[in-house]
Amino acid sequence: MMEKRVKMIKAGIVGGTGYTGVELLRLLAGHPQVELAVITSRAEAGTPVADVFPHLRGHVDLTFTVPDRAALAACDVVFFATPNGTAMGMARELLSAGARVIDLAADFRLKDAAGWQDWYGMPHACPELLAEAVYGLPEVNRAAISEARLVANPGCYPTAVQLGFLPLVEAGVVDAQHLIADAKSGVSGAGRKAEMHILYAEAADSFKAYGVPGHRHLPEIRQGLSAAAGAPVGLTFVPHLTPMVRGIHATLYATLKDTAADLQVLYEQRYTNEPFVDVLPAKSHPETRSVKGANTCRVAVHRPQGGDTVVVLSVIDNLVKGAAGQAVQNMNIMFGFEETAGLQGIALLP
Amino acid sequence: MMEKRVKMIKAGIVGGTGYTGVELLRLLAGHPQVELAVITSRAEAGTPVADVFPHLRGHVDLTFTVPDRAALAACDVVFFATPNGTAMGMARELLSAGARVIDLAADFRLKDAAGWQDWYGMPHACPELLAEAVYGLPEVNRAAISEARLVANPGCYPTAVQLGFLPLVEAGVVDAQHLIADAKSGVSGAGRKAEMHILYAEAADSFKAYGVPGHRHLPEIRQGLSAAAGAPVGLTFVPHLTPMVRGIHATLYATLKDTAADLQVLYEQRYTNEPFVDVLPAKSHPETRSVKGANTCRVAVHRPQGGDTVVVLSVIDNLVKGAAGQAVQNMNIMFGFEETAGLQGIALLP
Amino acid sequence: MMEKRVKMIKAGIVGGTGYTGVELLRLLAGHPQVELAVITSRAEAGTPVADVFPHLRGHVDLTFTVPDRAALAACDVVFFATPNGTAMGMARELLSAGARVIDLAADFRLKDAAGWQDWYGMPHACPELLAEAVYGLPEVNRAAISEARLVANPGCYPTAVQLGFLPLVEAGVVDAQHLIADAKSGVSGAGRKAEMHILYAEAADSFKAYGVPGHRHLPEIRQGLSAAAGAPVGLTFVPHLTPMVRGIHATLYATLKDTAADLQVLYEQRYTNEPFVDVLPAKSHPETRSVKGANTCRVAVHRPQGGDTVVVLSVIDNLVKGAAGQAVQNMNIMFGFEETAGLQGIALLP
Amino acid sequence: MMEKRVKMIKAGIVGGTGYTGVELLRLLAGHPQVELAVITSRAEAGTPVADVFPHLRGHVDLTFTVPDRAALAACDVVFFATPNGTAMGMARELLSAGARVIDLAADFRLKDAAGWQDWYGMPHACPELLAEAVYGLPEVNRAAISEARLVANPGCYPTAVQLGFLPLVEAGVVDAQHLIADAKSGVSGAGRKAEMHILYAEAADSFKAYGVPGHRHLPEIRQGLSAAAGAPVGLTFVPHLTPMVRGIHATLYATLKDTAADLQVLYEQRYTNEPFVDVLPAKSHPETRSVKGANTCRVAVHRPQGGDTVVVLSVIDNLVKGAAGQAVQNMNIMFGFEETAGLQGIALLP
Repeated sequence: MMEKRVKMIKAGIVGGTGYTGVELLRLLAGHPQVELAVITSRAEAGTPVADVFPHLRGHVDLTFTVPDRAALAACDVVFFATPNGTAMGMARELLSAGARVIDLAADFRLKDAAGWQDWYGMPHACPELLAEAVYGLPEVNRAAISEARLVANPGCYPTAVQLGFLPLVEAGVVDAQHLIADAKSGVSGAGRKAEMHILYAEAADSFKAYGVPGHRHLPEIRQGLSAAAGAPVGLTFVPHLTPMVRGIHATLYATLKDTAADLQVLYEQRYTNEPFVDVLPAKSHPETRSVKGANTCRVAVHRPQGGDTVVVLSVIDNLVKGAAGQAVQNMNIMFGFEETAGLQGIALLP
Repeated sequence: MMEKRVKMIKAGIVGGTGYTGVELLRLLAGHPQVELAVITSRAEAGTPVADVFPHLRGHVDLTFTVPDRAALAACDVVFFATPNGTAMGMARELLSAGARVIDLAADFRLKDAAGWQDWYGMPHACPELLAEAVYGLPEVNRAAISEARLVANPGCYPTAVQLGFLPLVEAGVVDAQHLIADAKSGVSGAGRKAEMHILYAEAADSFKAYGVPGHRHLPEIRQGLSAAAGAPVGLTFVPHLTPMVRGIHATLYATLKDTAADLQVLYEQRYTNEPFVDVLPAKSHPETRSVKGANTCRVAVHRPQGGDTVVVLSVIDNLVKGAAGQAVQNMNIMFGFEETAGLQGIALLP
Repeated sequence: MMEKRVKMIKAGIVGGTGYTGVELLRLLAGHPQVELAVITSRAEAGTPVADVFPHLRGHVDLTFTVPDRAALAACDVVFFATPNGTAMGMARELLSAGARVIDLAADFRLKDAAGWQDWYGMPHACPELLAEAVYGLPEVNRAAISEARLVANPGCYPTAVQLGFLPLVEAGVVDAQHLIADAKSGVSGAGRKAEMHILYAEAADSFKAYGVPGHRHLPEIRQGLSAAAGAPVGLTFVPHLTPMVRGIHATLYATLKDTAADLQVLYEQRYTNEPFVDVLPAKSHPETRSVKGANTCRVAVHRPQGGDTVVVLSVIDNLVKGAAGQAVQNMNIMFGFEETAGLQGIALLP
Repeated sequence: MMEKRVKMIKAGIVGGTGYTGVELLRLLAGHPQVELAVITSRAEAGTPVADVFPHLRGHVDLTFTVPDRAALAACDVVFFATPNGTAMGMARELLSAGARVIDLAADFRLKDAAGWQDWYGMPHACPELLAEAVYGLPEVNRAAISEARLVANPGCYPTAVQLGFLPLVEAGVVDAQHLIADAKSGVSGAGRKAEMHILYAEAADSFKAYGVPGHRHLPEIRQGLSAAAGAPVGLTFVPHLTPMVRGIHATLYATLKDTAADLQVLYEQRYTNEPFVDVLPAKSHPETRSVKGANTCRVAVHRPQGGDTVVVLSVIDNLVKGAAGQAVQNMNIMFGFEETAGLQGIALLP
């Protein structure tokens, strides 16, 4: 009798001490088909992962190492959970060695190298890979992801905003020149770094907008929605810092060109086969906590007072569907695993 | 030599156990020209105020009493910090007795009694007073307030949204048919009542919109902005619940008709003489904590990427400029006091 | 060839709308050997569970029903996630029908019916079951639990405090007449009920003790520690309300009789075979978030400045190891499952 | 006719960008007898204070300057709101110039220079001033403070713990060899500096102890209580980090030697003339928010179950009575002002 063989792959993580890195560890430690082989951190090299992150005691036995190209090249997949600019310095070599690469930072998200340099303030180190890199939003690019060697994992805001706007923009029912995305993020979205403005005593019990003149996620969202619309869109994007740890709530506004469209049906049909997008019943108000720790985006669509303004509410966990969870989803697609493998955890509520 | 006499008035508060009531107590206890004479609460009658609110120990010696019309009528001013529907049952009598009335609830905010009934679900008890009642937004109605017997203190969202939109709408530089107000409130805005959705374990570490199909503050804002525009405006208003105690942040969007207007100058000129509206320098992002406990509205105006969408950021403390502080400001105007008397406290930060 | 059969059981939950009920749902929905058969709620009967708790959409298909004794009696195990006093009214009948019962409330925690009545303010409905009921702290009563029909799941504070004190008290190295347990709980410990003191605006950004004159968990802890000591212990227990959703941190103090004891070794040996008690290295300070969502108790033992006072730090998630997780652990033991089945989720951090 | 002259003094602040510095600014800006003359910050020199702290817009017109000894020496009083080790480098010179000095850091808190070096890790720069420096706890040293040139403002934990223990220790009714202080602080107590462990996403929704092996406030508390007891006391001090911005809650434990003592009366008599210590009625549980922004310490004393363990609950705002407020109180005493001048603000609740 044939024994069913479960395919196993080796995974490496570059930059394992940030929030997306540690969330990757949580998810991959519970993934049935992944062996965690390497995790790097220059700052913590030599320290067991579980000493830095005690919640992983008993679950992760690895020790942080300095980045070693040979060890990483021996992995089937390498995740970059690093600051912008790191993955583009190592991707070519890893790809040549046969590893696949998923970058959770922004290095491969924009197709336009000049635009990338404008927004990120440094020249791009390997613009020739930008064309090959697949933007890892499975709800748009599933087929391409399944063939990809190099995946650019979307930003957290771009995931919430695009999933919220896509049905409207693809269907062409709104004025795509005046899209508004008012987005609110928990503080973990700013990363795990010692900066003043994200101190507890600075960010707690207060609320503010930031980056109104221009935020790096703007061109990324614009690129994705323009592709969906088949023409350049006009977008105003205002991010806000919210006193919570995890979660993004995007409140989206657009003016309907076609007020006869049944928006609820439009959304339900668009996402009917998506395992990680949940269209809520009409009149719903999703809470960010309903996706805390889960790889789900919950969406609700409203037309207040029956007017010509449509309001979409879209929530994700910025560290899961907005980062590490989506990266694992992309990995699952790339390696032919069940797309939901390792991602079936239920949100923690309350 | 003549002694300078400080005019003193007697104040009563109906409904002193909610958050706006207790905030009135804090402000009036420190007001140099007010003697707190009466504070009523059916539930707490007979209990010293400081037993219910220990932070007032040593500052407020009053005891809660059942509402007594004679005692209230003997006051110079009576504040209603009650649920909607209470003030309209007692206002006529108090006014006849010579007291002035400031209602912190919604009873006298809408000019249209039928509209009021639609939104508040009960017939109005004294529609004949609606015409007389002055909407207590000093930045619009200062002169009328100074003559008023009956002031309808604005709602918290309406204060933040109107102060943010007024310069644009008055100047006619935006499309007033598609105004968008995305507003975020701390949980104290929901009042001090035992309801499930505002429990700590329900509201903490999460973010959500509510009331998207229609919120009672919508007609109030629409009425105020329509008056400012000289014609009915179109407004989409989406309130959100934020995991903080105090504060409202309104993010406002409008499409410019006149892209040559200098918006920074427009705002600074509009509010140049206003003691409680602070126009921040260009490119600023006000935080709600910068007004915590203070009667100030801080406003910043942006035009992202120089496009035709204007973004206004407006923050207040919902319990101060959005309720009790504004009520004291109105009282000061009504009685000819310095408008800033009792309202000079600095925000508590951090 | 023999097929390996996984034993499956049917579980019912009485009272599924509180925090311990919804946490049971999360854990049981992911348990490989449990079929959720019944979930009752008088208030929500007829409503799908996922309508009340949207985070369970796609994971739990059940609908709340009114409690039906026949349906419950057909279950292999019935969990009571109800207020105190409910389980004792139904336990006899369910046990007679062959179901096993795990009560997450306090009905069967105290052996002394008179004491129970004193602390809980009502006569006990079935004192004859008190002797049979097994106190479900696996680290003390594993063997008895495996044989039990009726398990009294420990309280949250008692779990954290007993696991922290047990090694000291069992070994007889401290003065058991002057034990001090200073415990801090997240607000979810107060339950999901509309009460004023646990409103967000009351509990956020503040800290207080409560129940200093006497808390119901005091006799429960005293009973457990007295059994461990072999003689009545003296305990001062002070609970505090902490502005966080989940988590208990117990800081425990005792005076050493034997200052030569190696406390680190004592703790490590006591818990060496326990899957859910993690003794941290010397000098550690466990954080409650390191167990958020996990069934783990992390413990650290200190002897400040080498003096005769021992300080133990013990953290759990009040809804998991302090309630629903421990109930599942007890179920696993009762039915001969792997003790860790369904309980291997990693804590959510940050 | 004689005009009443209000005596005015000039105040300088060294290190105005930390939380104690900005709180001093808030309090001194509202003080009727203080002119803010100088505020220094190397990092922000040249920047208006209100640009760094927008809540002070309209209240503070000063600009940060580099520390200039002449400008500071021209002040009547200089506050050091600096890291440990700064004040001791400048105090001698300022005192010689005739200024009085209030150090909010630890430089002059311990009488023993060798002990200071052990705990603070650097030699003391002017040990000869330690004898002259007066420990600024007005409830103990009011007379000496009124004569002092140099005041060591107490630490936040030491203020809460000493005010809680003093009546017991002075009266000699407890075993002073086994005092336990379990203290919980809001995150602002850690200061305004970019450190990882006090990030929002690290400190929110979690609770932990720290410094159990030994915290710098231990010798300070021990020194004060030993003086009160007339003999060295034994103290176990465990600080905890609490997810709130402001507030300290000290829960104190001691064993009664004299169980006949009326503790409520003892506390009320001890503090009967103290303007800033409020002894609550028996059975009270003070909340930290009841003193948020106020210079008050609220204390409650309990004897659970009538046993021989006394439990004291003591709350302060760490930035006010635990730092800047107490410094202003000391200044008032030193300059013969009303002790409550500038300190009559009511706590902000909710």
